[in-house]
Amino acid sequence: MTRLEIYNQIVQKKSFLCVGLDTDINKIPSFLLKEKDPVFEFNRRIIDATKDLCVAYKPNIAFYEAEGTKGWESLQKTLDYIPNDIFTIADAKRGDIGNTSNLYSRAFFEKLHFDSVTVAPYMGSDSVTPFLHNNKTVIVLGLTSNSGAQDFQYLKLASGKRLFEEVIEKTKSWGTLDQIMFVVGATQSSELKKIREIVPDHFLLVPGVGAQGGDLISVAKNGFNKQCGLLVNSSRGIIYADSSSDFDVVAKRKAKEIQLEMEKLLNKYSIL
Amino acid sequence: MTRLEIYNQIVQKKSFLCVGLDTDINKIPSFLLKEKDPVFEFNRRIIDATKDLCVAYKPNIAFYEAEGTKGWESLQKTLDYIPNDIFTIADAKRGDIGNTSNLYSRAFFEKLHFDSVTVAPYMGSDSVTPFLHNNKTVIVLGLTSNSGAQDFQYLKLASGKRLFEEVIEKTKSWGTLDQIMFVVGATQSSELKKIREIVPDHFLLVPGVGAQGGDLISVAKNGFNKQCGLLVNSSRGIIYADSSSDFDVVAKRKAKEIQLEMEKLLNKYSIL
Repeated sequence: MTRLEIYNQIVQKKSFLCVGLDTDINKIPSFLLKEKDPVFEFNRRIIDATKDLCVAYKPNIAFYEAEGTKGWESLQKTLDYIPNDIFTIADAKRGDIGNTSNLYSRAFFEKLHFDSVTVAPYMGSDSVTPFLHNNKTVIVLGLTSNSGAQDFQYLKLASGKRLFEEVIEKTKSWGTLDQIMFVVGATQSSELKKIREIVPDHFLLVPGVGAQGGDLISVAKNGFNKQCGLLVNSSRGIIYADSSSDFDVVAKRKAKEIQLEMEKLLNKYSIL
Repeated sequence: MTRLEIYNQIVQKKSFLCVGLDTDINKIPSFLLKEKDPVFEFNRRIIDATKDLCVAYKPNIAFYEAEGTKGWESLQKTLDYIPNDIFTIADAKRGDIGNTSNLYSRAFFEKLHFDSVTVAPYMGSDSVTPFLHNNKTVIVLGLTSNSGAQDFQYLKLASGKRLFEEVIEKTKSWGTLDQIMFVVGATQSSELKKIREIVPDHFLLVPGVGAQGGDLISVAKNGFNKQCGLLVNSSRGIIYADSSSDFDVVAKRKAKEIQLEMEKLLNKYSIL
């Protein structure tokens, strides 16, 4: 999917929300456990409830892998169920040498038909370029929002730059603007401004608004570009907002709240 | 599995060989395709042929994931088939925040019963520590053997160290000697000596002897410690050495050649 196609979705829905499908069999409402595939049934109802309010879905692959073959089946069914015009992100954080990355690329793009996959940069260019396919996007970890980000991402290099700046600077040249995005943790919104200087035109995936404590207003202020340029993810705050049989109704209300806040910001910065 | 248990295996088998099960449905002998589960059947015969010559098996998870649910089943059966006293490595190169890493840990350790998993360090301590369990090992990417390693791993830091040195130095304190190993690419054997100074007592997983051009003699010289301290992986050079119906006989011969070279080196450095 191109940046323009994503932008068109954003304009149409007045939203840059990505819903994280971190679906854990141990956390979904217990009445769903009687279903044949509780994880898919949960996702199906979350998708029905939120598909008009979000522009992307991001299944966290670990949650499915933890259930083995059964989890993989739930994931496949979920991907088949998501409407085609919504951007899909395999949050997999893969990163391996060429022939292995080719296989991950086959798994996520050809078998599961994801539009994009998150990738860790430590192994360098030949771990990223195998994911560059026509109409697919690689989302490279730039700066993450977890406490461990301090361990290596902020390391000062001999050049004066910090590691995450070098990673983004170097990686952006490995593909077209449509092929590369970056993960930028929302709790680091003061850094977001600096990252926007390095990659003014790329889309950024911002996890961590909600449970991880990011602030949407400051993310918009520092991260917007002319085509919005942001996908802001919320997972637990939407999908686990309620555990009754009306969990999907509550999820819809939560997503609507975020969408309305996003609409205000899109208007404020004249993006719509 | 503790370092002592691995060392005991090394002494008993006079080998520090790890066989990489990079099993690709498109590369296995075509006569196996008539089997119900060709990938497992291939692995079963490779395991039967090599289990007395190696101390570890390392399935590359991408190869199984690329086949979706079917691949996951083949992987499960393979793990169930590997004898319990042989160390198993999920070559998955995962790396994500705490709750996600917990789920990967559940997938690889509890569902599939691997002894260890390879992990990428970019996201820092909370992406590594969830894999620290009793009797399990985290194998952190230190220095890899692919060309892309040049992009970030060798970056000079303001401290004077290079990034991979800082990664190994910092990561080694996150668990016990039995809980942490490092991936060190064999093509970088001049660097192996320096890494041994940082982690004299840790086991190192050395991929890339064989197809990636590493040199066993120089790896042993620079990497051995008193308990051997090395697991050297060979994948394609063993498992794809032949594509006839005797592929397992040829695989055994190739593994035996490596084992004999390893025995010489273990004797030369008085490790046996």
